[in-house]
Amino acid sequence: MASESGKLWGGRFVGAVDPIMEKFNSSITYDRHLWEVDVQGSKAYSRGLEKAGLLTKAERDQILHGLDKVAKEWAQGTFKLNPNDEDIHTANERRLKELIGETAGKLHTGRSRNDQVVTDLRLWMRQTCSKLCALLWELIRTMVDRAEAERDILFPGYTHLQRAQPIRWSHWILSHAVALTRDSERLLEVQKRINVLPLGSGAIAGNPLGVDRELLRAELNFGAITLNSMDATSERDFVAEFLFWASLCMTHLSRMSEDLILYGTKEFSFVQLSDAYSTGSSLMPQKKNPDSLELIRSKAGRVFGRCAGLLMTLKGLPSTYNKDLQEDKEAVFEVSDTMSAVLQVATGVISTLQIHRENMAQALSPDMLATDLAYYLVRKGMPFRQAHEASGKAVFMAETKGVALNQLSLQELQTISPLFSGDVSHVWDYGHSVEQYAALGGTARASIDWQIGQVRALLRAQQA
Amino acid sequence: MASESGKLWGGRFVGAVDPIMEKFNSSITYDRHLWEVDVQGSKAYSRGLEKAGLLTKAERDQILHGLDKVAKEWAQGTFKLNPNDEDIHTANERRLKELIGETAGKLHTGRSRNDQVVTDLRLWMRQTCSKLCALLWELIRTMVDRAEAERDILFPGYTHLQRAQPIRWSHWILSHAVALTRDSERLLEVQKRINVLPLGSGAIAGNPLGVDRELLRAELNFGAITLNSMDATSERDFVAEFLFWASLCMTHLSRMSEDLILYGTKEFSFVQLSDAYSTGSSLMPQKKNPDSLELIRSKAGRVFGRCAGLLMTLKGLPSTYNKDLQEDKEAVFEVSDTMSAVLQVATGVISTLQIHRENMAQALSPDMLATDLAYYLVRKGMPFRQAHEASGKAVFMAETKGVALNQLSLQELQTISPLFSGDVSHVWDYGHSVEQYAALGGTARASIDWQIGQVRALLRAQQA
Amino acid sequence: MASESGKLWGGRFVGAVDPIMEKFNSSITYDRHLWEVDVQGSKAYSRGLEKAGLLTKAERDQILHGLDKVAKEWAQGTFKLNPNDEDIHTANERRLKELIGETAGKLHTGRSRNDQVVTDLRLWMRQTCSKLCALLWELIRTMVDRAEAERDILFPGYTHLQRAQPIRWSHWILSHAVALTRDSERLLEVQKRINVLPLGSGAIAGNPLGVDRELLRAELNFGAITLNSMDATSERDFVAEFLFWASLCMTHLSRMSEDLILYGTKEFSFVQLSDAYSTGSSLMPQKKNPDSLELIRSKAGRVFGRCAGLLMTLKGLPSTYNKDLQEDKEAVFEVSDTMSAVLQVATGVISTLQIHRENMAQALSPDMLATDLAYYLVRKGMPFRQAHEASGKAVFMAETKGVALNQLSLQELQTISPLFSGDVSHVWDYGHSVEQYAALGGTARASIDWQIGQVRALLRAQQA
Amino acid sequence: MASESGKLWGGRFVGAVDPIMEKFNSSITYDRHLWEVDVQGSKAYSRGLEKAGLLTKAERDQILHGLDKVAKEWAQGTFKLNPNDEDIHTANERRLKELIGETAGKLHTGRSRNDQVVTDLRLWMRQTCSKLCALLWELIRTMVDRAEAERDILFPGYTHLQRAQPIRWSHWILSHAVALTRDSERLLEVQKRINVLPLGSGAIAGNPLGVDRELLRAELNFGAITLNSMDATSERDFVAEFLFWASLCMTHLSRMSEDLILYGTKEFSFVQLSDAYSTGSSLMPQKKNPDSLELIRSKAGRVFGRCAGLLMTLKGLPSTYNKDLQEDKEAVFEVSDTMSAVLQVATGVISTLQIHRENMAQALSPDMLATDLAYYLVRKGMPFRQAHEASGKAVFMAETKGVALNQLSLQELQTISPLFSGDVSHVWDYGHSVEQYAALGGTARASIDWQIGQVRALLRAQQA
Repeated sequence: MASESGKLWGGRFVGAVDPIMEKFNSSITYDRHLWEVDVQGSKAYSRGLEKAGLLTKAERDQILHGLDKVAKEWAQGTFKLNPNDEDIHTANERRLKELIGETAGKLHTGRSRNDQVVTDLRLWMRQTCSKLCALLWELIRTMVDRAEAERDILFPGYTHLQRAQPIRWSHWILSHAVALTRDSERLLEVQKRINVLPLGSGAIAGNPLGVDRELLRAELNFGAITLNSMDATSERDFVAEFLFWASLCMTHLSRMSEDLILYGTKEFSFVQLSDAYSTGSSLMPQKKNPDSLELIRSKAGRVFGRCAGLLMTLKGLPSTYNKDLQEDKEAVFEVSDTMSAVLQVATGVISTLQIHRENMAQALSPDMLATDLAYYLVRKGMPFRQAHEASGKAVFMAETKGVALNQLSLQELQTISPLFSGDVSHVWDYGHSVEQYAALGGTARASIDWQIGQVRALLRAQQA
Repeated sequence: MASESGKLWGGRFVGAVDPIMEKFNSSITYDRHLWEVDVQGSKAYSRGLEKAGLLTKAERDQILHGLDKVAKEWAQGTFKLNPNDEDIHTANERRLKELIGETAGKLHTGRSRNDQVVTDLRLWMRQTCSKLCALLWELIRTMVDRAEAERDILFPGYTHLQRAQPIRWSHWILSHAVALTRDSERLLEVQKRINVLPLGSGAIAGNPLGVDRELLRAELNFGAITLNSMDATSERDFVAEFLFWASLCMTHLSRMSEDLILYGTKEFSFVQLSDAYSTGSSLMPQKKNPDSLELIRSKAGRVFGRCAGLLMTLKGLPSTYNKDLQEDKEAVFEVSDTMSAVLQVATGVISTLQIHRENMAQALSPDMLATDLAYYLVRKGMPFRQAHEASGKAVFMAETKGVALNQLSLQELQTISPLFSGDVSHVWDYGHSVEQYAALGGTARASIDWQIGQVRALLRAQQA
Repeated sequence: MASESGKLWGGRFVGAVDPIMEKFNSSITYDRHLWEVDVQGSKAYSRGLEKAGLLTKAERDQILHGLDKVAKEWAQGTFKLNPNDEDIHTANERRLKELIGETAGKLHTGRSRNDQVVTDLRLWMRQTCSKLCALLWELIRTMVDRAEAERDILFPGYTHLQRAQPIRWSHWILSHAVALTRDSERLLEVQKRINVLPLGSGAIAGNPLGVDRELLRAELNFGAITLNSMDATSERDFVAEFLFWASLCMTHLSRMSEDLILYGTKEFSFVQLSDAYSTGSSLMPQKKNPDSLELIRSKAGRVFGRCAGLLMTLKGLPSTYNKDLQEDKEAVFEVSDTMSAVLQVATGVISTLQIHRENMAQALSPDMLATDLAYYLVRKGMPFRQAHEASGKAVFMAETKGVALNQLSLQELQTISPLFSGDVSHVWDYGHSVEQYAALGGTARASIDWQIGQVRALLRAQQA
Repeated sequence: MASESGKLWGGRFVGAVDPIMEKFNSSITYDRHLWEVDVQGSKAYSRGLEKAGLLTKAERDQILHGLDKVAKEWAQGTFKLNPNDEDIHTANERRLKELIGETAGKLHTGRSRNDQVVTDLRLWMRQTCSKLCALLWELIRTMVDRAEAERDILFPGYTHLQRAQPIRWSHWILSHAVALTRDSERLLEVQKRINVLPLGSGAIAGNPLGVDRELLRAELNFGAITLNSMDATSERDFVAEFLFWASLCMTHLSRMSEDLILYGTKEFSFVQLSDAYSTGSSLMPQKKNPDSLELIRSKAGRVFGRCAGLLMTLKGLPSTYNKDLQEDKEAVFEVSDTMSAVLQVATGVISTLQIHRENMAQALSPDMLATDLAYYLVRKGMPFRQAHEASGKAVFMAETKGVALNQLSLQELQTISPLFSGDVSHVWDYGHSVEQYAALGGTARASIDWQIGQVRALLRAQQA
């Protein structure tokens, strides 16, 4: 029993513990990240205990000062872990007792690790969401600024990776920026659900000692309190949501990375990564590889893996707290770190990316105007289906003759449809082409400006 | 070329098509579910074309009437598919042409299947979300009503599947109902993001023919329009979000099912499923199996699999539309059907479940009051950590002596702590125990009532 | 009770069944795929019963003939399902009884649906594995034949999608073919574990009636019998393995598809898909999209989703049969169909793919020989690290001067290292470059031939 | 340029590197685990270089001695990392150069990090598979020994968690042990595919310097060499297979854990975990929680998450090496550690588990013999379907009368069927019941002995 006496459940155990089990069970190697929020939560809880009459004002102050010392030790890197400190909660309380004596034993009154750990995690994640949201906004802003500056550059828009229609380069940038605004919107929604206080739920049944949860909420600045103590201590929706948020955001960034990797190939040569975000080859001296983008793309897998893992862990669990839930924290910490790095690297990549506008211009080809050629006929009154077929015939004729689409003579075109006349030459102007796409959301300059305005307004609204 | 002439891209192809490829490529076997919304979208679009001057009023009306006929054929089950109808859009337009002639060829002017299909899918999913939300609310209401009716029944609360503390049966019901209110909240958020109109985005560059997207939005009653045509035609966030919503909701239902399966074992004998939700064994005549609950539990895997599959499909895709996105629809249809069945079956199970209150009562045991015993000492002034240890010693003493915890004599207890006195006998009353847990969210009767009120208010707010 | 009397567990139920539950529980819509193997299994089992003395020879023959009639009805499409046929086992036995009377009621003696369904599934999958393996071999053979025919075509090898070194086109083909040989190897291993007989395990405890499982094994041509009846009726490892096999195989095909989609862009222009495997655009007349490849790439997500779903369903299930396991079949059927289509389409794509060898040749550029330039110096005695740095300097010099690497003059090269002399000109020959890579597995012609021989030998060995 | 000069690709870069990118790109924090195999691989490679004439014997020996010193520093914990050591390969070569000078620069001749890293990883994983296989065998052996010792203990077998039929406790143990033998079989197959040498593949094109890969294979004791250099450097099948192997093995262990958690509840009370594998509650003094089993169950999610993450990362990647592949190592290291701990903890749990045989016996109830009752009638000549129905009626009659099934009088039974006679009383003996299940794989004692023999023979065969 002696060997167990330092444990929280001290009084009862008589067996020895398998050292592998000990390590398997321990979470201190990672949940130490929670030291600050654990102290924060305990300070609020000691205020709650005082108000409930379970601590005197003096005891409360003793605890508050002790906790401040604990925090200081962590902040200064002088906190020493004991082998028996299986988690951050045990470690902090053990240290508190060393610093202030038996009064420390009153802090956990009516509290369980079940409500304590989930309070800590919510505090930590609330903060992290704010940080990640700021990084996401910075990335979006960088993209929008760039879109504004490079509005007049045209290049090929692709569907199915086949050249489709001429578009503005800014239209491409904005397509990814707009996707990211949904991510920031979602992150704020997740944060709202994170920002709910479970403290005061005990292990399962609630708090029996008159602790005022509304006071705890106010102390810790939560938006609301949880409704049911069984649910509060064992639901990890907010973790699953956060991991899914990250997975979906990474899906967006993986697609943007894929585009930029392609655009940076010799064959496309539209963009060039700054050296700061490239690396070389240990074998091939001429190589400059887009490692930053490949890593971003790959992290989509890792982050999703954490989301998948947590959901599988949750599936079919009996109600309330089971130790299985201990899997939540490493997932959150790893994904938070990954997202933070990814968002900063993406911002760096976008802000230092060089573009080759001549290559972009040269990649535009007359066949990309085949749709416009059909519209030309539509404007002359031909139903679209026929116009589409007529334009298709023109493409086929040009291919067969081995000439560019705009090099078909008027006579040749007229063999396809008598509606073709001299003004067909206007179709072959790329600048004219993009300006047609003036409906909201299209690639005309006015629409690009509208998009920029809309995204900026969204960011302002989200930040409010 | 002739053999391809029925295809939408008629004019150009010269090769033959592999029949396996044809089937591989075709989506009509499942996207026919979209017939109604496809007609709806086309009707709105023809109004947009008329306003833009691309259709005369007469042509528009001709199209509108034709589309109504198409819809009628679907509704009556008389619509006949052609072998060349590779998707619902092709089928409907082909039929329209048969019904009204060449004017049908004007309907697709400035539209692409890229913006058409995603508009259809959003219309379909918007409706489905409303249906699923109604089913979810019904389930929650059923649970809350039951919780209200059975407030006075106590049974063991478990953590780690070990008996923990006495709780009210209603507290258990509400723990699952509260989890489901987050699902309905999230579903409404997803629906809000579904409810954004992409029509008018064309294939990639936007719409060049002056179609008023705001008019289309109003016609189709969307909440907003998409901001960027490239993003609009290729983002499937709303699908991923919906699949994740379902996955998380199923996680909740899998946990509730797990509980009920356990509670329905011979060993627990707390509940009994109605025959309507059980099945027998082809071999063992005495068996009555909780198949309904097992199926609900298992569907958590299937639904999540669809979510995982879609995210993997999206990962690393180049920008804009790629055929890969065709995977979205079967996932959505299957998951919608599954969720609809699961929610209805769950409601049936909960509303017909019999409970065995005597078994519940008998399962309460004095050791479950060990925490209350510690609180007894806390109230006498002992710091909680010491009280926890003292109570642990009492449990150990009772186990060693082979008696129930409440059968230790006062003298025996006093060997552990002199603070024990005659009033310790009050600890052993389960009804008294639960009433202590009066903090908001706890298992006291007042708190249960508060929870019921909170959930009902939430439902009202969500339905508004 | 009457309304339930057609059910297998006839005698006991008194409640009514919720129609939604009925549908939720029923598997006949998909497990009808098992009709043939179900009959096969029942025929073997009736022989087992006869040998055990539980059927007379006449009864056995009556059952065998009846089962043949059942099979004939399925084969001819005349089998009529009843509303009460919840699964294929019930349907077949119900029909058997209609055909031969009460003797049919002896067929299920000592058997449970638990061992019956898993026997059926193993029989079905054993066959499917053979079919898929044949399709896979055909794909590999097509690739190897093509690699042999096009051995002399060079093109750029890429790493990080940046041009790396000149390689043979056949080297690329073989890189994917070699990956697929691991898939066929794995499929045979999975098939070996599928080919184990569970029949005779009953519901959980085994068979109490002296049925000779070794006879059943021989009748059904299984390789072995399962060792433990509890495990036999509830393990679905072989399903999980099959789904993972498909997921990994799809990962390979997704990577090959990605390559070909890139190589088929206007920018790369190395390959052109046959019209049979491309489709057009409903809007853009010039488009020819690689839909076949995009669909293959996307199916990697779908197939993996099924694997993920099944594993999540299995996780944490209690021992032995639980209804959750019903999820196995739809996953298997869907994935089998998908794999069959994907493998055939991939074979079609590869066998009809046109390549543009001039474009491939033109894409080779002198900077891709920078590694060879370093090796030139190594052969002159310079340590590789220095040689790598020297070659890097040459690349930098060429870039700075705006010339190709092979256009640096000898004098210029000698400012980097005095080891450069006139014979450096031999470095700039692509044909000479690839022939250097003669170690086994490299891109020299002899090594390509070796690879072809190795893969063919592997296929022969696998087919044996 | 100076600031980059310590990098492997020294000569070319001119930009500065973003510190976040630097950290994002670096792998030394985890790939340092590979130090030993990296040295091993380099030693073999230097022998290959000497044989190919690229190193003199003296240079080779200098390198070999240097590498031994590097290894010694790692083993003694004195190896000092530089900030520029981005990965273990760079670190080791940098240190080698410090120790032996410029000759170190010859080691990497013809090698690329692409073939180096994958050789290292295969060496590491080959070793890890052996370790994990040994742990798995130990777990299986422990289970089989226990099954042998406790052969005579009966308890209820459950399907759908409902009491089904009496079985031997050993039958349950063996059901899980048999599942684990498939895991060890699969692990050996995975190891076989790991044990293939990629060294000599260079970055993509192969090795141009006459290095004898067969010699490298023999030096490093691989079973075979890879066939294609492009595939060899970029396929991660063996990683995916390993992660899936672990996922499926964890699924088994999650199911065994679930059983034991249930059997250890107060309600079942069949087993009791040793204190060494339990923990207490910070709040509830009486609690003893099965944390070890819950953690095992939960790890099924984590491990699968890594598998899912890797597959998503691989999906759709272009051919050959992309930096995305860097994600492989952390997954492998984490999963290896997890599996090692899980297998050891599981062995500890099983070997120290206490069982309550009286509770097991008491949990057997006459209704579990309903199937045997049906078989009684079958043996009297009644077709099984009728017998099943008759037995079902008996169950219903007993329930209606509120008596146990074996308390129905003979007269009562005869109202159901005249075939019932006095010998029906033999049905009610549990020991007699289990002995009937004598077909191979069943729960009769002889069959249990056969199973034990089979599993032991399997282990011997696997170890050979």
